[in-house]
This record gives sequence, structure tokens and C-alpha cells, in this order.
Amino acid sequence: MEPFSTPFFEENFRQYIHKNRDVFTKLEAMNSYYRSVVSSMIYDNLNKNSEIVRRIRNLDGAYKTVKEEKSKI
Amino acid sequence: MEPFSTPFFEENFRQYIHKNRDVFTKLEAMNSYYRSVVSSMIYDNLNKNSEIVRRIRNLDGAYKTVKEEKSKI
Repeated sequence: MEPFSTPFFEENFRQYIHKNRDVFTKLEAMNSYYRSVVSSMIYDNLNKNSEIVRRIRNLDGAYKTVKEEKSKI
Repeated sequence: MEPFSTPFFEENFRQYIHKNRDVFTKLEAMNSYYRSVVSSMIYDNLNKNSEIVRRIRNLDGAYKTVKEEKSKI
């Protein structure tokens, strides 16, 4: 799976939700994961701003998809 | 206060936490606000990618400051 692609982030969201299911609700886990990923991406000076924004858009698309899922986790 | 500056986001974080204090813990409110602001900024085609990344960095700086605050809310 291509790193930083939408399916990549979807999978990571699901894993993070699952791993933290005893401590966080699904939405709490998702918002926490989202914040930590964005925070690390924006200080990555190896990447162009256009690439950073592209990755965050992929993350955000994955967020919307996984948020709507009822049964996969 | 300059829009999208770090102090601007600090103030907005505090207001959002306060407004939602009956429903969200501080950290839940912060992560929720962070996600919604990032999500709206990345689809704003009026702004250059460099400006989008600059604003998200300001947001992230404000997040770190407000997260550490003990008593202001």
C-alpha cells in the first residue's frame, strides 16, 4: 500500500481505533490520530508544501470514510 | 488579532473548550477543533499551499500552548 495514500490512512485509522478501543471512543481515537499525524507532517522539511497538503487531504478523506463505517472495527 | 495567527487560534481553542465543557474533556475538545479547522483549511483553494501549511503550523503551536495551560479555562 502506498504510504500517505488514502487507503494507507484508512488502514492506520482502523488499527489505531482498535488498539485504543479500551480507552477511546472511535471518534476520540480518530481525532487524536488525525492531530498527531498532521502535527508530524507539517514539520517535515523534506517535503514540499504541495506534498504536505496532498497528504493531509488523503488523511482527511480517510477520516471521512472510516468515520462512516459501522462494522469494520 | 490577526486571523490564523497563533494567538488567534489559542483564543479559539479556549473558547471551544469552554463552550463544550459539558460534553467534551479539554483534550477531546481540542482534538475535535483541530480536526475541523485543518479539514476546512486544506480545501480552501484561494490560498497557496505555503499559506495553508503556515496556518496549520500556527494552529499546531496554539494547540501545544493551550494543552499545557492549567487554569485559564
